[in-house]
This record gives sequence, structure tokens and C-alpha cells, in this order.
Amino acid sequence: MSFYPPLKRFLLGRTLPTSAHAEERLSIAAALAVLSSDALSSVAYATEEILLVLILAGSSPLGLSVPIAIAIMILLAIVVLSYRQTIRAYPQGGGSYIVARENLGIYPGLVAGGSLMIDYILTVTVSISAGTAALTSLVPALLPFTVSLCLIFIFLLTIANLRGVKESGKIFMIPTYTFIVSIFVLIAFGLFKQATGHISTNYPSIPVKEGLSLFFILRAFSAGCTALTGVEAISDGVLAFKEPEWKNARLTLMYLGVILGLMFIGITYLSHIYHIIPTEGETLVSQLGREIFGDGLFHGFLQVVTLLILLLAANTSYADFPRLCYFLARDGFLPRQLALLGDRLVYSNGIILLSLCAAILVVIFKGQVNAVIPLYAVGVFTSFTLSQAGMVRRWFREKSSGWLASALMNGLGAIATAVVLGVIISTKFLLGAWLVVVAVPMLVALFFTIRRHYQYVAESISLKGMPPRGYLPRSKPAVVTHPAVVVVGQLNRGTVEALDYARTIADEIVAVHVDIGSTDKERLQEEWLHLERDIPLEIIESPYRSVIEPIIKFVSEFEERHQGVFTTVIIPALVPHNWWESFLHNQTVLFLKTALRAKKSRVVTTVRYYL
Amino acid sequence: MSFYPPLKRFLLGRTLPTSAHAEERLSIAAALAVLSSDALSSVAYATEEILLVLILAGSSPLGLSVPIAIAIMILLAIVVLSYRQTIRAYPQGGGSYIVARENLGIYPGLVAGGSLMIDYILTVTVSISAGTAALTSLVPALLPFTVSLCLIFIFLLTIANLRGVKESGKIFMIPTYTFIVSIFVLIAFGLFKQATGHISTNYPSIPVKEGLSLFFILRAFSAGCTALTGVEAISDGVLAFKEPEWKNARLTLMYLGVILGLMFIGITYLSHIYHIIPTEGETLVSQLGREIFGDGLFHGFLQVVTLLILLLAANTSYADFPRLCYFLARDGFLPRQLALLGDRLVYSNGIILLSLCAAILVVIFKGQVNAVIPLYAVGVFTSFTLSQAGMVRRWFREKSSGWLASALMNGLGAIATAVVLGVIISTKFLLGAWLVVVAVPMLVALFFTIRRHYQYVAESISLKGMPPRGYLPRSKPAVVTHPAVVVVGQLNRGTVEALDYARTIADEIVAVHVDIGSTDKERLQEEWLHLERDIPLEIIESPYRSVIEPIIKFVSEFEERHQGVFTTVIIPALVPHNWWESFLHNQTVLFLKTALRAKKSRVVTTVRYYL
Repeated sequence: MSFYPPLKRFLLGRTLPTSAHAEERLSIAAALAVLSSDALSSVAYATEEILLVLILAGSSPLGLSVPIAIAIMILLAIVVLSYRQTIRAYPQGGGSYIVARENLGIYPGLVAGGSLMIDYILTVTVSISAGTAALTSLVPALLPFTVSLCLIFIFLLTIANLRGVKESGKIFMIPTYTFIVSIFVLIAFGLFKQATGHISTNYPSIPVKEGLSLFFILRAFSAGCTALTGVEAISDGVLAFKEPEWKNARLTLMYLGVILGLMFIGITYLSHIYHIIPTEGETLVSQLGREIFGDGLFHGFLQVVTLLILLLAANTSYADFPRLCYFLARDGFLPRQLALLGDRLVYSNGIILLSLCAAILVVIFKGQVNAVIPLYAVGVFTSFTLSQAGMVRRWFREKSSGWLASALMNGLGAIATAVVLGVIISTKFLLGAWLVVVAVPMLVALFFTIRRHYQYVAESISLKGMPPRGYLPRSKPAVVTHPAVVVVGQLNRGTVEALDYARTIADEIVAVHVDIGSTDKERLQEEWLHLERDIPLEIIESPYRSVIEPIIKFVSEFEERHQGVFTTVIIPALVPHNWWESFLHNQTVLFLKTALRAKKSRVVTTVRYYL
Repeated sequence: MSFYPPLKRFLLGRTLPTSAHAEERLSIAAALAVLSSDALSSVAYATEEILLVLILAGSSPLGLSVPIAIAIMILLAIVVLSYRQTIRAYPQGGGSYIVARENLGIYPGLVAGGSLMIDYILTVTVSISAGTAALTSLVPALLPFTVSLCLIFIFLLTIANLRGVKESGKIFMIPTYTFIVSIFVLIAFGLFKQATGHISTNYPSIPVKEGLSLFFILRAFSAGCTALTGVEAISDGVLAFKEPEWKNARLTLMYLGVILGLMFIGITYLSHIYHIIPTEGETLVSQLGREIFGDGLFHGFLQVVTLLILLLAANTSYADFPRLCYFLARDGFLPRQLALLGDRLVYSNGIILLSLCAAILVVIFKGQVNAVIPLYAVGVFTSFTLSQAGMVRRWFREKSSGWLASALMNGLGAIATAVVLGVIISTKFLLGAWLVVVAVPMLVALFFTIRRHYQYVAESISLKGMPPRGYLPRSKPAVVTHPAVVVVGQLNRGTVEALDYARTIADEIVAVHVDIGSTDKERLQEEWLHLERDIPLEIIESPYRSVIEPIIKFVSEFEERHQGVFTTVIIPALVPHNWWESFLHNQTVLFLKTALRAKKSRVVTTVRYYL
């Protein structure tokens, strides 16, 4: 990053020394806020996505949302119990990439890694889109600016994360717990109103677009499975807990499971008894809030809190994605730049990459949650399955105390998530899941291409067997010549300086000038003889007005005549005061350097003349 | 241009030698086709633009279009007669920039030049948009692709002009004369149908949005004045005529005036008697065609011919704009690159600049003719006025035979176009003309900034008073040292090569390495002592993980200790096989060079190691 320094300092704060790198340890309450916002916030859209599928078959199957939600809760319980085993086995933090790589091998590891990369990007897209939907439900006038709002939120998250959000624990707790309390208050009041008989109207009549089938119900189930994304975050971040880390992490995971389950089933049941249907322009939670509390303060409060927890949910990807990229880059599967700590001790390049990808998806899908949902959850269930399968393998290999129960639990988890993954892919394939199914193998292929390149480079430049250089005699042997070619555009102060430099390093110098038809050759030769008569000047005619090609040809021939020594190609460059002024000069220097690289010239020297 | 060579050759043809540069001379008939398509084609939209203003006051004032068209015809006559004087005085071709600059001074010249640049861009935008409208009127299914079609046409014109359309004369004649004949056939049949009583319905009732006022009528008049753009083309291109050039040019200008006048008044009168009103999605000329000839072959033919002449009209800007840029660049007011002949002996950069600007306007205004019209004609009337005023001044100074009559004619032209310019600016100011009013002074300021830069550079690098260099003794004096700094990232083959080169040119060498916390210092020192013990290695600690800054600081201090000699900064660079592979390596070399430039290091040498 080399943008305007004062602006950078204003946005990102001052640069931090490496020694400032330290991790804050989190209490259970803080960890639940920091690590679970992604999972908890899915309550804001998961029920709506189920209903959006069911409604295609009219109003009659809408009641199926409740059993579907119960099925998803059972799946959640299995996943939570399964991940408890992972936490015990990986008290240092067991992300899916690491667990799958260690226990299943490199391919499954990279598939898990690639899947997770895609899912982290989608988490940002979905959470930001859902948060914006919460806001536009409250202020419908903002609806036309959906995409712009999404991009603004992404920009703010980017800046916050480039600064580094170290003070996070406490800041995260307020919106997370407020959201949890708000949702429970909503559920309690909603149930109370039902019990006291204040129940609203029936479903309006809805046109039936598709017949009810098992496939159809499974599609609704798949849409709801997005509620499980983010559950793995706690097992990734075990090291962030206070001691005893893995015990606290397991406890937090249990709390998360219970809270998420209750909120999800509560919202789904309320939507059913209040006969809420998904509406364009207002989220389901917003409709519930208005239905139960009226158009007043609590509804507004609920929307703002929903927006905030969804921003936090997106924010968790800003911790997970750059960390995953760091692991992959460290192992040579991603460009090395992703493993560099930035000015503020965060993986800046990973953060920027995540923001760019998420922003592109927001623009493509116009900030609509339900447009992105078919892509979502494919990645996370792939990594669930691989991670749990890896754990099964591990238990069988290690056979530590209590291994059989753990293996059974992880096996159940692996099978359940594998089945769901199959359901998700088959029901949402044509709706967009195919994109992920295609993208993951492409990513894995890219990982291998990148590693192959790094390995090739490392071998090419290895010094194995290279003899010591320092024993060369310091005085230069008399037979070696030091040839140099000086490229001359005009004869001016810049050129004179380059020729002066050439005299100090070379003993065979030739200057070359290309005439594209605009050179006054006689005058140039005359001036040359006056000023630089000790260096021969070659003028090359260029009837096709190309400057670069004749020079390249000349240099190539010159280098061929001087094999075994370094030929220095000297290019004088005028440096203007300001960057914009360089647009007013031909970019010949740049083109020439690029062309010399293509011709494998070894030594290119720029002699700069500052205006 | 450095794009993929085979693609370039396919699109643009082979490179031409400078000696192939020659001009084709045109007969009157051919010249009318080549130089007048811009003016003649305005018949396709000018009447519609008048009606689009009048219709805001309901159907009753639509009949005013006929007197407004007559007023515009009178103005056309004045402009034609006035430009006849210019042709006589400038038989070498008198563009407004040249006439205004020679006779009124540099500021009016540049105002005329800037205005014309803007108007040439707008000519492309308007003509392409109107041509696309003619096509979508014929094939309404293409309507949603308006902007894409416009961009495709601009692309095709760009390619054609980058190739150079030297064979133009005859190719241009077919569509131009077909268009003229078609329009006259349309007018004749239309009048015949009226005379035989086949007149259509009355105007439909139209809601009145604005009251009728003088300002309102003047606005309609301004919209119609776009018909006059392009009339100046003949006086710019006198040299393109066969001998006697200026006499043939004057005759052609008269023909143009008569044909354009008849077509314009004819279309306007027909629209009036056939009660045509502007409709979204179909042009007025297309409506007329269908009304008079039905939905058959002739209507389709008319639309295609209209599209073709509008493409030719846009094409004239591709001759005029790059030529104007060439004049301005030659005088130092625009970047020098605009004065370079491309591979095919055309001013490629001017052509590309024009296409880019026109394409941006097409996208901004969504390819809608009436959205661009308020910006149009401001520039051309500015240049009319300045050019005619310049001619008046010239006649008074030269007083050649018949000067008084000519001066009167040019004076009348200058006053009439100045009044119309005032009317255009005041009636269309808020609708968009302000953009041009703001842009022209900004362009002029840019012209001066650019020239000031070039003058400054020329002075800075001038060799005035520089003593001859060639008399320096060829053998280097013993006291001069040749210091070099070698930047070391890792110790690998690339670094070893750079150090070997340093040994050949310098006698005081130091290597510098920056440790951002990831270097195994002991191992590096050990390897170093084994391989390169004659060169000292400095390892700099960088607690803030910046690589660039410590190197810059080191080099600056080193150069301060070695004043009066050239310090060579040597940077080893690994060059990968393919361009995409460079994304996998840090761009440190690039950043380092940029930073060294900011610190005014004079000699930077890249030693490349090819993988």
C-alpha cells in the first residue's frame, strides 16, 4: 500500500512495531460475543429463506417451516457435539484446513481451505446484505441505495480491520447481548400475545407456482442450513480463550448451540403463528417486530441491533479469512504477500482481498440476500464434513482415552454434514451452488500452480554447489572490457549526465540514437562532435517510426559481440517534479525496459536527471 | 500501443513506412460526401429536437417549428456566405484555431481550439446515438441494447480510423448521395400525398407542461441550431480539393448550404403537415417514413441509410479531432504523444482519445440524443464567432481587393453567430450548456499549463554554455572512487550475479539487507562469509517491518558520504517466465525504484536474473 501517507495515517493510525503483537485473552462471555456473532446473526435471515422457498407452493406448506427448523436444530446439536471433540483434540485451535490436512492429506486439506475461503467471502456478502436489509426495512427511503450502503459498510469494516480491532472484546459484547435479549423479548411477547388471544389475520391468498414435493422441502431445508455457518469459529479460536482454554471453548460452544437453537426455532414458530410471509422491501424479523410491538421505538431498536450484529458477523470473516490466507501463503499455496503483516500488525493484503471479493459479489447480486443464499453453506458444509472425517481418522490412529465415543460423535457429525452437503448441492445446484462446485477445484488447482512456481523458483536460484565468489582478485584483470550502450533521445543535460556516468564504469562506450524522420541529423552530429567526441554516436534510421525495436536490435547485436562480460545498457531519464507531468513525456523509457527484459538483457541502468 | 501483435496486425493491418504518406485529392462530388456528412446528417435529428422543446407547451405551438426552421436556414445562409470569404483568404485550409490564433491572438485561438475539441467529441456522441436511434426505430427489439450498440459503432469507427481510411472518397459517396436522394424522395412523396388529400389525423391531445414564451421559442431555436454543426468542415479541408482548390471548395460549400437547407425545411414542414410528434423509441424521420410509405421496404431502407450517413458524420470527427490535436500538440499545448504518427500513418493517440471521450459520454447520457443536445453547438458557435471575427480583423489589416465586402460579410457572420451563441448558452445553460461553458476555460488553462511545463523542461535541459565533455582524459584518475550499494533480499543466484556485476564497475561496494523479523541472521552471515567475504554485508533491523524506508535511509547516507561521484544503486531482480507469475513475488523492486526517485538517487541499476 503506498497511498497518500497523511490520509493513510488518518484512516489507519500510526505504524506499530512488531513487538506490539500480542493476543487478548477472552472470558466466556466475551468469546461468545466475538466468535459467535456470525452464527447467531443468521437468525436474522434463515427463517425468511426457508419461507421464501415454501411460498412458491402457496400458503398451505408455510407451516412446514417449523418441522424444518426442528430438523436443522437437530443437525446443529450434532455439529456442536462433534466440534466439542475437535476442541479437545486441538487445544491450539483446529481450523478445518489444518485438521483436514493433518489427518486426511493435502488434497482434502486444500479443498477444505478453498471451500472456507469462498464461504468467508460469502459470509461478508450475506451478512452485509442482510444488515442493509434490516436498515432499509426501518427506513424504506434508503431502499434504492441498497448496493451503495452495502459498499459503504464493507469500506468501514475494511478500514476498521486495517487499523486492527484489538480492543474488540468489550465492544463486541454490547450489540451481541442486546441482540440476544431483544430476540428473546420479541419471542416472549409474541407468545404472550398469542396466549392472550391477540392473534393476527390468516395468510393472504398466495398464487401457487410449484407443486409440493420432497425435493422442494429439502430445498427449503437447505436454505435454512445457512443458520449453521459460523459454528466452527469457536474451534478455530480456542487460543483466544482464558485458561483453561479448551474447557472454556467447549462450554462456549454449548451456550452458542442452545442460544442459537432457541432463537431460530422461536422466530420460525412466531412467523408461523403470526402468518408472516416474506415481503419485498421488509425483512421477516422487521415484520414480526412491527406486528408484535407496533411501529414504534422497539421496532426501530430491533432493526438497529440486527444491523449491528450482522456487521459483527461480517467482521468475523475479517479475522478468519486473512488468517486462513496466512496459513495457505505460509505453506506456499497463495502469494507470499498474503503472509505479510501490515503497518498495523494485521494481514492487510488478506483484508483488502476479502473486501474486494465481497464487494464484487454485492454488486453482482445487487445486495439481495436471497440471491446469494444458494451459493452459501456449500463451502461451510464441505469443510464441516472434511474436518469431522479428519477427526475420525485421528481418533482411530491415536486411540487416546475415550477415543471411541469421540470417534462415534465425529463420525455421526461427518455423516450428517456429508448428507446435508449432498442435499444442499443437489437442491441448489442450478440456482447457483454449481458456481461453488466449480470454483473450489479451480481454487485447489490454483493453489498447486502457485506452489509449483515457488518450488521452481527456489530450485532455480538455489546456491547449492556455488563456489565462493569473494576469492576473485580485487583488481580487475586487464583483458576484461566493460562495454556500455547509452540510449540517446535528444542531446540534452540528461544525456550528458548519462554519458559522464558511462565513462566512469565502462571502457567501451557507444551511443545510439533512433531517427523516426524528425531528427536534424547534421545538427545532431555537429553538436555531438563539439561535446562528446570521444564516444561514437550511431544514428539508426527507422522508416516505420518505431523507436524501441531498432534499439533492441542494436543492443542484442552488441551483446552478442561482447559475450562473457556484463554489457550495461544506460538509459537517461528525465524526472519531472510531479507525477502528472510524466504523462506529458513519452513513456519510451518504460517501454524500452520492458522490451529489454523480453530480450533478456541483464544489466539495465537508469541515469536520472531531476528537473 | 503495445497490445498483442498478431491481433494488432489483424485489426489494423501491417505497419506503413513514413514514405507512404500522401493525400488523395477530391472532386467536388466526392468532397461533398467526405466533408459534408456531418452537416447533412443533422437532418436526422434537428427537427425532432425542435419539436421536443415545443411539445412541452402542448400541441398548439408545434406549428412554430416551420418559422423556426426558416430562421435557422437564414442563419445557415449567413454562415455559408461568411465562410466563403474564409476559404478565399485561406486557400491552405483555415480551421478556426488557426484563423483565430493568427488574427486575434493566442487566447481566442485556444478558446476556439478547446471549443472545437469538445464539439468534435460531441459530434461523435450525437451522431452515433442518432444512428443507433435510427436502427432501433427499425428494429425495436434492439432498444434495450442502445448503449452497447453505440459502443460497438464507436469501436468499429476506431478500428477503421486506426487502419486509416485513405480509400475514402468513393466509399463515402454512396451512402451520402443515397441519403440525400432518399430524403428528397420522402419529401416529394409526402408533398404529393398532401396535394392529393391523403393527409393523416390531427395531433393527439398533449398535456401542457410549460407556458409558451419568447424564451421557450428561443430554446427550440437553439435546439435546431445543431443543424449547422459541421458546416465549417469544408473550409478546414480546402487542401483536399482538386485544383483550383479554393474555387471548388467555395462551390461545394454553396451546394452544401442549398441541399441542407432544402432537406431541413422539407422534413420540418412534412412533420408539421403530417402532425408527427416525437415519440419515445422511434425517431421522427422513421415515423415520417412509415406514415408516407407504410411499414415496408422503403422505410427500412431509409433507416439503414440514415444510420450509415450518421456513422460517416461521426467519422468526420475522426479526421478533424486528431488533426486539431496535432496542431495543438505541435505548438506545445497538448501532450507530445498526440503529434506522433502511428503505425498506419494516422494520429493514433488522437483517435483513441476521441473514442474514449465519446464512449464515456455515450455511457453517461445512455445513448440518448436529446440528453446530449444541450451541450452540443455551444462549441461550434464559439468557434464560428471567433473565426469570423478573426477574418474581419484580417480584412481590415490586409485591405486586399474586395476586402470591404468580405469584411462586411464576415462581420455579419460574426455578429449573427455571436447572438445565436448567446441565445444557445442562455436557453440551455441549466440543461447542460454550463458544462461546456465551464470546460472550455478549463481546457485553455490546461493548454497553458502543458506549454509552461514543456518550456520549463526545455530550459532545464538546455546545453547552452556546456563545455565539451570529450576532452576528459580517457584513463580514470586514481583518486575517484566508484562506490556501489547492492540491495540484498535473500542470498541466491540473482544476488550473486548482482554482486559479480558490482565488482566489475565499482571499487567500494557495500551490500545491505533489511530484517523485518523473519531473517535467520546467523545463517545469512555464515553463508555470506562463505560466498562473498570480500564485500561487507550490513543487516538493518526494521521493527516496523518496512523494507523500503531503511534502504532509502542507508542509500541517502551513503551517497552523502560519497559526494561528487556517481553512486550506483544495484538491485537484483528475478524475472519470471510469464507476466502473471510476477504477482507471486513482492513488488519490492518497483517500490524501491519509485522511492529512490523521490530521494533523487541518480544511478539505479537493475541486474536481472532470468528464471
